[in-house]
Amino acid sequence: MQALLEAARRKRSPVVVGLDPDPARIPAEVREGVSEPEAVRRFCLGILEAVREEVAAVKLQAACFERLGPPGMEVYAELIRTARELGLPAIADVKRGDIGTTAAAYAEAHLRVYGALAVTVNPYMGADAIEPFLREARALGRGGGAFVLVATSNPSAEAIQGAGDPPLVERVAGLVAALGRPGPGGYSDAGAVVGVTRPARGRRVRELLPEALFLAPGYGAQGGGARDVLPLLDRRGGGVLVNSSRGILYAYEGAGGDYRDAARAAARGMRDELLAAGVGV
Amino acid sequence: MQALLEAARRKRSPVVVGLDPDPARIPAEVREGVSEPEAVRRFCLGILEAVREEVAAVKLQAACFERLGPPGMEVYAELIRTARELGLPAIADVKRGDIGTTAAAYAEAHLRVYGALAVTVNPYMGADAIEPFLREARALGRGGGAFVLVATSNPSAEAIQGAGDPPLVERVAGLVAALGRPGPGGYSDAGAVVGVTRPARGRRVRELLPEALFLAPGYGAQGGGARDVLPLLDRRGGGVLVNSSRGILYAYEGAGGDYRDAARAAARGMRDELLAAGVGV
Repeated sequence: MQALLEAARRKRSPVVVGLDPDPARIPAEVREGVSEPEAVRRFCLGILEAVREEVAAVKLQAACFERLGPPGMEVYAELIRTARELGLPAIADVKRGDIGTTAAAYAEAHLRVYGALAVTVNPYMGADAIEPFLREARALGRGGGAFVLVATSNPSAEAIQGAGDPPLVERVAGLVAALGRPGPGGYSDAGAVVGVTRPARGRRVRELLPEALFLAPGYGAQGGGARDVLPLLDRRGGGVLVNSSRGILYAYEGAGGDYRDAARAAARGMRDELLAAGVGV
Repeated sequence: MQALLEAARRKRSPVVVGLDPDPARIPAEVREGVSEPEAVRRFCLGILEAVREEVAAVKLQAACFERLGPPGMEVYAELIRTARELGLPAIADVKRGDIGTTAAAYAEAHLRVYGALAVTVNPYMGADAIEPFLREARALGRGGGAFVLVATSNPSAEAIQGAGDPPLVERVAGLVAALGRPGPGGYSDAGAVVGVTRPARGRRVRELLPEALFLAPGYGAQGGGARDVLPLLDRRGGGVLVNSSRGILYAYEGAGGDYRDAARAAARGMRDELLAAGVGV
């Protein structure tokens, strides 16, 4: 995950912009007269260009491209490529969870064919579902890795992830600790998705994963604020990338004006808020 | 899931053929001189045509198409369309697990855009990750649904799915029971993926889900046999679709001759073996 941390330090920003494009919320001047995939393509390219100096990385929500059929996957490929050219490493938010040759095929697809630096992975099938992604990231040697879903930010997660004593999240965190290997900067190549909406849960996961990079959803639209990130920080006061999707993409809806200017201002505001609250990079 | 059951009864077969194409194992005469996506396309079309009378349905392993980039998704679309024309409902084995609008986008992608009848879904994020798939299947009204991963057949699954007391699988089974709605034939639109490699686990899941259609991996290549399916049967002696992928696709490697003939013979043999063991449709 070294490449993500380096990007965060270079920009002095722990912010990840999430590309979850919803065609209905793309400004009319971008989407009129063109196909849905083309509207999504133009909109997302505009966002990447606008926020490139304000954010550490970009997270692409694969579902939003998958629902556009094969042309959507062309757009997905182009966005990952363009992001890299702009100095923005891409995290493929695919949450895949399968085993053996199937997991290896997903890892090959998103890390090698589409060229993301890191992916999100679902641990329900156990170590078999995680290892192939780490193997592919190691073979590529680009300082990437996999973020394993540990404690997600959505309301119904607790019924599954909080089950048992100790709760399932702790068992999954143990798996992440066991499977990861430390990179040159000290962080493991197995990171964790840990939402900002349950601080006590987050603090406990950090105790179990002192060397993991966290990817934290739930900021902004899902109700979390800058102070909610603090329990997730590591002993160096960093180690957390904070994602915002709708809060940046659709900032223009409240602010008016050009969507790119609004997105840049929103990303910058979020970065400043996080840094001011004590979230380091 | 009514449409899957009807297909099983029409063919008198509980067999599902899994399309997990591995380009290296496609017969040389099919793959020579053409691109990988084209080789996969030809091979899979040949399989569909060969086994159409022997199997109830087809399960497409999305990863194998995703790793071929956008052209692979064109092949995936064509195979689902062709399968339907051949009277084979398609199960999109995507194991997606995300929430809210993202899950809705995945559901739209695979059930509506690509046109599968059912999908596999990962429950790690809770009810939020399952409901959007059921909603989309209901809106489409084609008698399809979602198979939720409950007890998978892989070696490392137990470390996660067996955690807690009662174990996590039972909690997930409870979720499936709560979210599903009965269809016209009595089966719920929320089915379950239950491997054949842990019979005691499977029997317990059946107790908790008396009205669910099960999709059972682990037969053949993963070590399960016809008798291992018996604990999964419902009180009518049916309710289980048994998947085989490699055992059918690559039957020609052992048997020699045309891969289509070998696949047909393997599918027929599996069907006869299951029926003889008492697996009803």
